[in-house]
Amino acid sequence: MAVADTPAPTPIPASGSQCLSCHGEDGRPALADVPIIAGQQPIYLANALRHYKNGQRTGGQALVMQEMVKDLTDKDIEELAKWFGEQK
Amino acid sequence: MAVADTPAPTPIPASGSQCLSCHGEDGRPALADVPIIAGQQPIYLANALRHYKNGQRTGGQALVMQEMVKDLTDKDIEELAKWFGEQK
Repeated sequence: MAVADTPAPTPIPASGSQCLSCHGEDGRPALADVPIIAGQQPIYLANALRHYKNGQRTGGQALVMQEMVKDLTDKDIEELAKWFGEQK
Repeated sequence: MAVADTPAPTPIPASGSQCLSCHGEDGRPALADVPIIAGQQPIYLANALRHYKNGQRTGGQALVMQEMVKDLTDKDIEELAKWFGEQK
């Protein structure tokens, strides 16, 4: 496949624009205490988002994440988990 | 560097032998809902281990992790976070 044929990367779902400032444009963060989520297991990511949303993860950055995910729908969660899982 | 000169991989710290059955020999799990921790940020990994240890992460697999980490010392946590962070 020639470079010109390389498919344009799929943009992050709209609900995920808030994730990029901490997690990095492609899920590779500049901050050392923020997890790399690029290429992470989508099921794990979706579970983690739900655990932040329902308060099962507390402490440290968890409070930031709880705020970030509180308005995400289950569809948003699945889409974001899939998108970050697909990043290299 | 010739293949013969490639340094042997550092073995996982003794306290981490219990991690491999779920997280995989090199931090790349076979199970889809277990996170890939190979190459993850060491500071994040250490924080996550401490959050499991002090009960700040609950729900789902967290209960398994709480059991796994309850006897880890802070030195163990730092060593394991460093080792998994170094895996490719």
